[in-house]
Amino acid sequence: MIIHLSSRQNDKIKHVIALRNKRIRKEEGLFVSEGRKAMEMAKESGLLVEVYTTKTLKLPNDIMQYIINEDLLNKISLNVNPEGIVFISKMPNIEIKKHDKYLYLENIQDPGNLGTSIRTALALGYDAIFLSDNSCDPFNDKAIAASKGSLFKMPIHHLPLSEFLGNREIIVSTLSDDSIDIDDCYPTKPFILVLGNEAHGVSEDTLDIATIKVKIPISGIDSLNVAQAGAIMMYVLNQHFEK
Amino acid sequence: MIIHLSSRQNDKIKHVIALRNKRIRKEEGLFVSEGRKAMEMAKESGLLVEVYTTKTLKLPNDIMQYIINEDLLNKISLNVNPEGIVFISKMPNIEIKKHDKYLYLENIQDPGNLGTSIRTALALGYDAIFLSDNSCDPFNDKAIAASKGSLFKMPIHHLPLSEFLGNREIIVSTLSDDSIDIDDCYPTKPFILVLGNEAHGVSEDTLDIATIKVKIPISGIDSLNVAQAGAIMMYVLNQHFEK
Repeated sequence: MIIHLSSRQNDKIKHVIALRNKRIRKEEGLFVSEGRKAMEMAKESGLLVEVYTTKTLKLPNDIMQYIINEDLLNKISLNVNPEGIVFISKMPNIEIKKHDKYLYLENIQDPGNLGTSIRTALALGYDAIFLSDNSCDPFNDKAIAASKGSLFKMPIHHLPLSEFLGNREIIVSTLSDDSIDIDDCYPTKPFILVLGNEAHGVSEDTLDIATIKVKIPISGIDSLNVAQAGAIMMYVLNQHFEK
Repeated sequence: MIIHLSSRQNDKIKHVIALRNKRIRKEEGLFVSEGRKAMEMAKESGLLVEVYTTKTLKLPNDIMQYIINEDLLNKISLNVNPEGIVFISKMPNIEIKKHDKYLYLENIQDPGNLGTSIRTALALGYDAIFLSDNSCDPFNDKAIAASKGSLFKMPIHHLPLSEFLGNREIIVSTLSDDSIDIDDCYPTKPFILVLGNEAHGVSEDTLDIATIKVKIPISGIDSLNVAQAGAIMMYVLNQHFEK
């Protein structure tokens, strides 16, 4: 169904803005994303609820389409949004289908790092992402933007590392002296790759339960960005993993 | 020398803010960065001019130190700046010492992608970065923040690809059908790794002069973030390169 909206005071518009608040997102189980590709991914996942757009889109009839002007778009959009598409979807609850390759993000604070790591983990065939309780919210608008729709497909759970260890290899990224070069890490059983906080790295508790500590050899600067290091490590472990 | 500043109208404060403008940065050959580590790297490179800080720092006498309060810090700082350090430095003009591994960024628009790519290229021992004319400015504040001081050490030049080809392998990242898996790319002579625009990839002209087209096999999503793909490719080419 298609409805035209023009008032900034409309309850629908107010609702989109209200969903910027994490508590309200959680209460309603809804969140806001932007862009055509992400919308297609939400639709494919059956999670798309309603769309706010400057131009009528080809969408199934049960998806509400609110046609808005540029002014209203700018009011509800938090990004540069040349496609003129903002949409509400249900929060995904995606089943973990395989259990070989997990990514655990401990106390990641930057939403861009989180979102881009979700995108890369999906693209590289990781099975699930786990987040420590103090990690940034994946439904934060910047995380959503960086994830490019990948959170509609990637299982993401808030769960402390200690609760899903199983018999897995716990491969912790840390620049300590006793870390081995990631290129020398050949996991032979299901593993969890652990990345830590941007400024402080992984916690002592996590280091204590690491079964392998890894690093990427670097020079000229103290560290890589955590999402960059994560991308390299996810890729290398993919190449090296043999169950 | 240490000077206390308290007025928002002070010419020094106005100057820091004026340097947000690209034209003024270019005219004066100066730019503004933030944070302790980046300041240390600027100092080591002999490029540090003056520092604005909430607490007196140990610095050589010829570096001007302006002590400011939190209010003034917030006025001149564009980032979350818990370290209370903003500084002006000269624009680096760093000699290219080796010519084996270049990174060429064509029409990269996101300053975060640019800054983090500079950081990763430095960390992974790339010799220089070249930027197409339409790429975002590396002295943009978000690019500087993401670069974490790496632009004080990494040679960066604005130069079209056609002007530094030499006899190099031109390895272009593109998701075309005739691209080979990056894991099958073993350069045996100096190379240029080319990454394209976030939305549109590399240009037709660049594809025409590619000597090797490469991609990272992915699934579940259309593409990787360009900086993430770049990190993986820079890493893999490092492992595979033999002159």
